[in-house]
Amino acid sequence: MDTAPLYRQLASHYLHAIEAGTLNAGERMPSIRVLMARHQVSLSTALQMCRHLESRGVLEARPRSGYFIRKPAKSTLTPAREPQCTTPDPAQFVGVHARVSDILTRGQAAQVHTNFSGAVGAPELYPYEALRNAAIRGLRNHPDLFGRAVPLHGDATFRSVLARRALDARINIGADEIIITQGCVEALNLALRAIAQPGDVIAVESPTFYGLLQILESLGLRALEIPTSPQTGISLEALDLAAQTYPNIKGVVVVPNLQNPLGSIMPDSHKQKLVQWCEAQQIALIEDDTYSALGNSDVPLSAIKAWDHSGNVIYCASLHKILAPGMRLGWISAGRWQARVEMLKYAQSRPNEALPQIAAADYMASSAYERHLRRLRARLREQREQMADAIASYFPAGSCLTVPDGGLALWVEMPAQRSSDAVFDAALQAGIRIAPGLMFSNLNRFDHFLRISCGQPFTRELDQAIRTLASIVERA
Amino acid sequence: MDTAPLYRQLASHYLHAIEAGTLNAGERMPSIRVLMARHQVSLSTALQMCRHLESRGVLEARPRSGYFIRKPAKSTLTPAREPQCTTPDPAQFVGVHARVSDILTRGQAAQVHTNFSGAVGAPELYPYEALRNAAIRGLRNHPDLFGRAVPLHGDATFRSVLARRALDARINIGADEIIITQGCVEALNLALRAIAQPGDVIAVESPTFYGLLQILESLGLRALEIPTSPQTGISLEALDLAAQTYPNIKGVVVVPNLQNPLGSIMPDSHKQKLVQWCEAQQIALIEDDTYSALGNSDVPLSAIKAWDHSGNVIYCASLHKILAPGMRLGWISAGRWQARVEMLKYAQSRPNEALPQIAAADYMASSAYERHLRRLRARLREQREQMADAIASYFPAGSCLTVPDGGLALWVEMPAQRSSDAVFDAALQAGIRIAPGLMFSNLNRFDHFLRISCGQPFTRELDQAIRTLASIVERA
Ligand SMILES: Cc1ncc(COP(=O)(O)O)c(C=O)c1O
Ligand SMILES: Cc1ncc(COP(=O)(O)O)c(C=O)c1O
Repeated sequence: MDTAPLYRQLASHYLHAIEAGTLNAGERMPSIRVLMARHQVSLSTALQMCRHLESRGVLEARPRSGYFIRKPAKSTLTPAREPQCTTPDPAQFVGVHARVSDILTRGQAAQVHTNFSGAVGAPELYPYEALRNAAIRGLRNHPDLFGRAVPLHGDATFRSVLARRALDARINIGADEIIITQGCVEALNLALRAIAQPGDVIAVESPTFYGLLQILESLGLRALEIPTSPQTGISLEALDLAAQTYPNIKGVVVVPNLQNPLGSIMPDSHKQKLVQWCEAQQIALIEDDTYSALGNSDVPLSAIKAWDHSGNVIYCASLHKILAPGMRLGWISAGRWQARVEMLKYAQSRPNEALPQIAAADYMASSAYERHLRRLRARLREQREQMADAIASYFPAGSCLTVPDGGLALWVEMPAQRSSDAVFDAALQAGIRIAPGLMFSNLNRFDHFLRISCGQPFTRELDQAIRTLASIVERA
Repeated sequence: MDTAPLYRQLASHYLHAIEAGTLNAGERMPSIRVLMARHQVSLSTALQMCRHLESRGVLEARPRSGYFIRKPAKSTLTPAREPQCTTPDPAQFVGVHARVSDILTRGQAAQVHTNFSGAVGAPELYPYEALRNAAIRGLRNHPDLFGRAVPLHGDATFRSVLARRALDARINIGADEIIITQGCVEALNLALRAIAQPGDVIAVESPTFYGLLQILESLGLRALEIPTSPQTGISLEALDLAAQTYPNIKGVVVVPNLQNPLGSIMPDSHKQKLVQWCEAQQIALIEDDTYSALGNSDVPLSAIKAWDHSGNVIYCASLHKILAPGMRLGWISAGRWQARVEMLKYAQSRPNEALPQIAAADYMASSAYERHLRRLRARLREQREQMADAIASYFPAGSCLTVPDGGLALWVEMPAQRSSDAVFDAALQAGIRIAPGLMFSNLNRFDHFLRISCGQPFTRELDQAIRTLASIVERA
């Protein structure tokens, strides 16, 4: 049974037709009315399908004349493969720290002219001037700010602004249910410490954000890697299977929207199912919502927390990728673990400093924030498409890539047998830093993948760097 | 054998003589020359003794005529008692968190007009204007600060300034051996996570900073409380005895200078012995140096780290109490655990934001910093003496108090059978917040103690509040 949502199934259908040459660049797509009749689908499904293909750069909308097939990129890569639904093995991550640190250190030591390794945008993508002015205003309005103890749990105004903004993601919480943290990384630490003891098993997506693997190892927790689809996120079937094999899973950590590194977005039906499944199994569900504001669409993506009625979901978020890479602002709303997380945050690092919160609150309460996000989304989308085109043009045959519907990076599969570690080193020699796939899993399953950042405006130099990288991959 | 340094033994001798009326207020002390001859001590010991009694308000120096006995405070309290050297019991701190949180919550909930509970100074004791200006300058000089990733391990200039300032405490480390943390509390978390696993035993001073007990509990570590002298700090005899009984101690945490809550200062000979003992026993030594800049003397107190040649001492410090209560700036230098602590800091919260570091570095590199510290020390000394006078005047007979040679608080022993918990509640009713002794130990040994902050300039209102508090203690 194909578990992808209907519009995605339809989209693949037309994608195949286009790849096979049945439909050609410049041709008009069947109209929405025709699509509805032909496939017996609703208006919204037909529309969603077209918008999806538009967001992938396959179709373009022309005002008053419908959708047309776009000129394909210089070449196209095979979309990323779906994972197999296997029963995984909870590995104690001895060594992941050392491995990741080793890669970070090698990366830092090298002099590079092109940095594709970070999942973060270039400074000019962020409103640093406006934030700086807000900070100066904050310092003027609170002359004795540095002389007074910092506010418990965070600045009250900032917490209200966050609570108001969270409504967009359909999260309904009060400001007093929000604790400000030192980035999402601290939020994840607190969430995991709240729900688990050393030795416990935590289910995670595979591949996943390497920072999460470091956190798990440093807390003595064991990661159970669950196969995760580049399209629809964590496999619920695989998770269920895993829970039957390992009845002692304490928590599940997911990035439901624009997963790092895959870029997948869980369909809302999956989100809801996952919430219900975790509740039934009495397994805590930790949501990392770092990227959801970076989707192609201006319609906000829903948080998993939106379906939580029992407090079983711990929501963690960050402004690091969407507002200010130079601030360390994250937050957590911990449902039924709220009191415990408040305690842990106090014991771990005390409340955060007020100034960045005051500046961010000032900016986020204004309409400039929405305008910034719209601009950021549009620019990232363009940069992703340009990078994907370059990769498709230069990378050797057998490479696979799905361009995600948002986010800061592309996850590229090299032809088999390529080692991302070797490519990493050779690229550093050539002045290029990428994130090798082996950072994102403990299972060596992604050793022939690269994560390539799309955070910088695309230039001739970046194009050249991708060409160089491709030749390194070719020879690897 | 009396293990107190010679000058302290001499000082007690003369203190007794003054208390007994053998020497009277207004009289001249024997001259330094006479003291040297009479007790067969060196010039420096005789001088140290007189300065010590001067700092305690017992003697006053008159230019060119020597030391005179001061008019006694309105009444004097018995000095704090030395602890008994017993073998302690490593308690798993189940519940200390809950107890402390409960006290903090009750304290926060009440409307108070007088807050004696925090170990922190009033805003006007800190150079918040200068720091604010430095922050504004920093924002002007780094317009894109909030758009760029934060520097790994902390701002380079700030780390150099700290390394330079650490020379005062006789610590000789490079800037690259310093990691900036979110306050000393995060530094302590990282230090403990580096050296111990859940279930391990850590020796701590008794009584100790409640935050440390929370950290230990939250990390699943077991605290072994070692009797600690109000004069000379942790008892080395008791520690040695404890190590014989519990051979699995993984670390010792001490505040060698101006311990919280006792205010004790370890003599240099004890510091050196402790370093050597820990090395010989292969037990990690964690030094919390939060308060050492707040001593009466402008001659800096030596850090324990000064005697460390093998990297067995992890040094943790903070600017929270000495420079800016509104910043969350701490740092750690972890000796042979440096790489592990770098890793843990990265996994726990990533590097800190740059702005406060830039502002603090700017200020601390200037001579204004030294001037600030001198002023702060002088004001705190005055405030401590005024508070001690008020306590001595109003508190019931049977109360004990030693005025420490620095720091932000007084540790007052109430007559036996008084419950600090009951006094805490009754004081809140009267609009006064204190820190009850039961927060500072898991052993109920300090339940009849109060920690009273001297951070605020002394006023008629504070005097009245102490009078009210005394009557609550009287009735309790
Ligand atoms: C999924 C995910 N969560 C969290 C983070 C880090 O968040 P922060 O910088 O707010 O600590 C990242 C950054 O790479 C990430 O990819
Ligand atoms: C001994 C001691 N260490 C650390 C701290 C807290 O340090 P920071 O505020 O820098 O986290 C305190 C504050 O009360 C303290 O008394």
